[in-house]
Amino acid sequence: MLADLNAELPDGTVVTDPDIVASYRQDRAADPNAGTAVAVVRPRRTEEVQTVMRWATAHRVPVVPRGAGTGLSGGATALDGGIVLSTERMRDITVDPVTRTAVAQPGLLNAEVKKAVGEYGLWYPPDPSSFEICSIGGNIATNAGGLCCVKYGVTTDYVLGLQVVLADGTAVRLGGPRLKDAAGLSLTKLFVGSEGTLGIVTEVTLKLLPAQPRGCTVVASFDDVDAAANAVVTITGKIRPSMLEFMDKVAINAVEDKLKMGLDRNAAAMMVAASDDRGPAGAEDADFMAKVFTEAGATEVFSTDDPDEGEAFVAARRFAIPAVETKGSLLLEDVGVPLPALAHLVSGVEKIAERHSLMISVIAHAGDGNTHPLIVFDPSDTGEAERAQVAFGEIMDLAVGLGGTITGEHGVGRLKRPWLEGYLGPEAIELNRRIKHALDPDGILNPGAAI
Amino acid sequence: MLADLNAELPDGTVVTDPDIVASYRQDRAADPNAGTAVAVVRPRRTEEVQTVMRWATAHRVPVVPRGAGTGLSGGATALDGGIVLSTERMRDITVDPVTRTAVAQPGLLNAEVKKAVGEYGLWYPPDPSSFEICSIGGNIATNAGGLCCVKYGVTTDYVLGLQVVLADGTAVRLGGPRLKDAAGLSLTKLFVGSEGTLGIVTEVTLKLLPAQPRGCTVVASFDDVDAAANAVVTITGKIRPSMLEFMDKVAINAVEDKLKMGLDRNAAAMMVAASDDRGPAGAEDADFMAKVFTEAGATEVFSTDDPDEGEAFVAARRFAIPAVETKGSLLLEDVGVPLPALAHLVSGVEKIAERHSLMISVIAHAGDGNTHPLIVFDPSDTGEAERAQVAFGEIMDLAVGLGGTITGEHGVGRLKRPWLEGYLGPEAIELNRRIKHALDPDGILNPGAAI
Repeated sequence: MLADLNAELPDGTVVTDPDIVASYRQDRAADPNAGTAVAVVRPRRTEEVQTVMRWATAHRVPVVPRGAGTGLSGGATALDGGIVLSTERMRDITVDPVTRTAVAQPGLLNAEVKKAVGEYGLWYPPDPSSFEICSIGGNIATNAGGLCCVKYGVTTDYVLGLQVVLADGTAVRLGGPRLKDAAGLSLTKLFVGSEGTLGIVTEVTLKLLPAQPRGCTVVASFDDVDAAANAVVTITGKIRPSMLEFMDKVAINAVEDKLKMGLDRNAAAMMVAASDDRGPAGAEDADFMAKVFTEAGATEVFSTDDPDEGEAFVAARRFAIPAVETKGSLLLEDVGVPLPALAHLVSGVEKIAERHSLMISVIAHAGDGNTHPLIVFDPSDTGEAERAQVAFGEIMDLAVGLGGTITGEHGVGRLKRPWLEGYLGPEAIELNRRIKHALDPDGILNPGAAI
Repeated sequence: MLADLNAELPDGTVVTDPDIVASYRQDRAADPNAGTAVAVVRPRRTEEVQTVMRWATAHRVPVVPRGAGTGLSGGATALDGGIVLSTERMRDITVDPVTRTAVAQPGLLNAEVKKAVGEYGLWYPPDPSSFEICSIGGNIATNAGGLCCVKYGVTTDYVLGLQVVLADGTAVRLGGPRLKDAAGLSLTKLFVGSEGTLGIVTEVTLKLLPAQPRGCTVVASFDDVDAAANAVVTITGKIRPSMLEFMDKVAINAVEDKLKMGLDRNAAAMMVAASDDRGPAGAEDADFMAKVFTEAGATEVFSTDDPDEGEAFVAARRFAIPAVETKGSLLLEDVGVPLPALAHLVSGVEKIAERHSLMISVIAHAGDGNTHPLIVFDPSDTGEAERAQVAFGEIMDLAVGLGGTITGEHGVGRLKRPWLEGYLGPEAIELNRRIKHALDPDGILNPGAAI
């Protein structure tokens, strides 16, 4: 059966070496229930993806699409008896500075897209913290966010068109390099965030912006999380910062342990904010944010219009996950709440951590209410690992109770699927199912993930 | 049969008065093939819409949803034997300045939404030229655009959540007041732009921005359309104007006939551009645009940082459609092309006008390549009316040939449906059909429209 597929594809596309196949079992969610695929298939072209999907449909083989494997919800967990379709070799990009668009294959890393368009003075905004290691295809699959999303929006806002290969191998072009298009259903948008359950994205047309100035940065320390959260609401009601990030005490200390940049180890919260409005407006925004932080009770406020100095603090924020990860294994949460509930979420997480004797650090894209509680645990300590799992679920329940979502930007994958129905409700779940069934009647595309 | 429905709804909801029903036969597209509904139903609440849809499903009655009836593609054309479901009485709005969102019913006009949120210092950006008379529900149905979309995006970019009633009467909540949400398929986005074919929107959660300054305006006249189009590409490659509008000679003269504001009647093209970047940045942008216009060969360039003076030119641009309408009836096109093709589109439309001895004026949201060729004809002149229809189709063929779309922001409705398959291609059409069938298996929602 696999020999048929192998015969139809260029040499080296179908990989069955057990060591290599084993290395594709998990993404960064390290799903403990991961299976082992019968093969990893690494096509280079849309036509090869079509070949794979026709074969998979003919033989009813489950297909798990995989980008760079940096997913945090187990969306690319391998399945026993299935194949992993890796897009890692699909790495072409063409930039058109005149239409201000780029056509990219899915395996390119986010950072590579940014670099390629940057050479034309253009900018692809979405910036997951993992932008140096995550793929643009994975970003599309999860509708990934990032730090600048508070001002510039998420992945879907930059996807003008897609080429997708459906379960039966049909290739379909949706949208294209037109900035506005109201013809037919919004299928491009439907595929963004569908986590590989509706089709395989083999090409994307991205909308680009002119490069933005790097702007002014404001850093503030608080001895009280509520005060920091209140400042967030005051700021976003008045201006549009280009970044508004939050780190709690655990994250501050973990980062300081490694980077030794003089962060306030006693602070309960640190905010890193920025404005990239041009000219004096950026500095005005920075002054305004500094004033709001001060009035909200910040213990220390630091502003800079030096981009490198600012970038050091952004890098500290980006480094929070690896820094906390030095304390143990992580279960990485991604819950989002309406902005006024931010402080309630943080204090609720603190209670969950106490109840289960766990270290949980909260970092957040505060400006859009999207938090990443990082649950630290020792996988060799069975009791602690179990408590971490319980806490993982309780945090989602907490967020939903506060009017929030179980995932802001990482996707549902396999790890969050048990919570999806409770969040969406039976009517919306039924709608998801109807659409999934209409597009993938045999259920071979990433079964068990997302919906 | 209708008596059953009448009995289940508050008095006055079901209207069968022939004069009133006749007034709901057409939207502004004035579809000559419009039928006559058996009733117009005007619910006030989601539950009443559910009652209507349950009844319609039980009796297999086609339902044509209608907002303010300002659609330009015949999306709300009444059908013989069907009902028109008008959302005009669904007019509640609640603004939450803390989460910077508004929850609105679909019958509210776009201008009313803007006004309600403006009272909190907030801004709902999408601004169709018809914003004073079109409904927010209709905006969602067509994924409407407008003048500021070149910088701020279209309707879908501001829709965080929806309540929709499906064909069978089920009410479903999709999304909500969360700025980021990656749980489940992107169904909110799927319903935006679906032109009433998948469900009835009964409530929308809108994302709002802090109010923006009104900025600087630049007006330029050209004796050559190519020069104006070249300037557009140069500008959008470098900066993000908040408006970049185009009017041709016919529109300039039609507006000048009425407003007598001293526009250059000899110009082949006039551009109205703006930047709302704060402080000196806005003026810098204006200077840059003025320089680009001059270097591209503008015969006259005028800049102002006076918002009222600027608004006069924007009003002139908005007035172009009614002004040209004084010359005869209009067939209003809405084709979009990639930016570099703008000049080709305008010259191609000119040739079509000559070939059919028609007056066709082109106005455009030039910054996103979305043009509105206005085909003027005398409906009592059968030959001319037929030629107008032929030109209408030829303009779509021209746009598609240039890599463009048959509709940028008005939707497909009934008037453009014959061109949809040629544009989308058979694979994408089949995907549209599968999703339509999954959500509306009996095909009672706006049959004949959009897909």
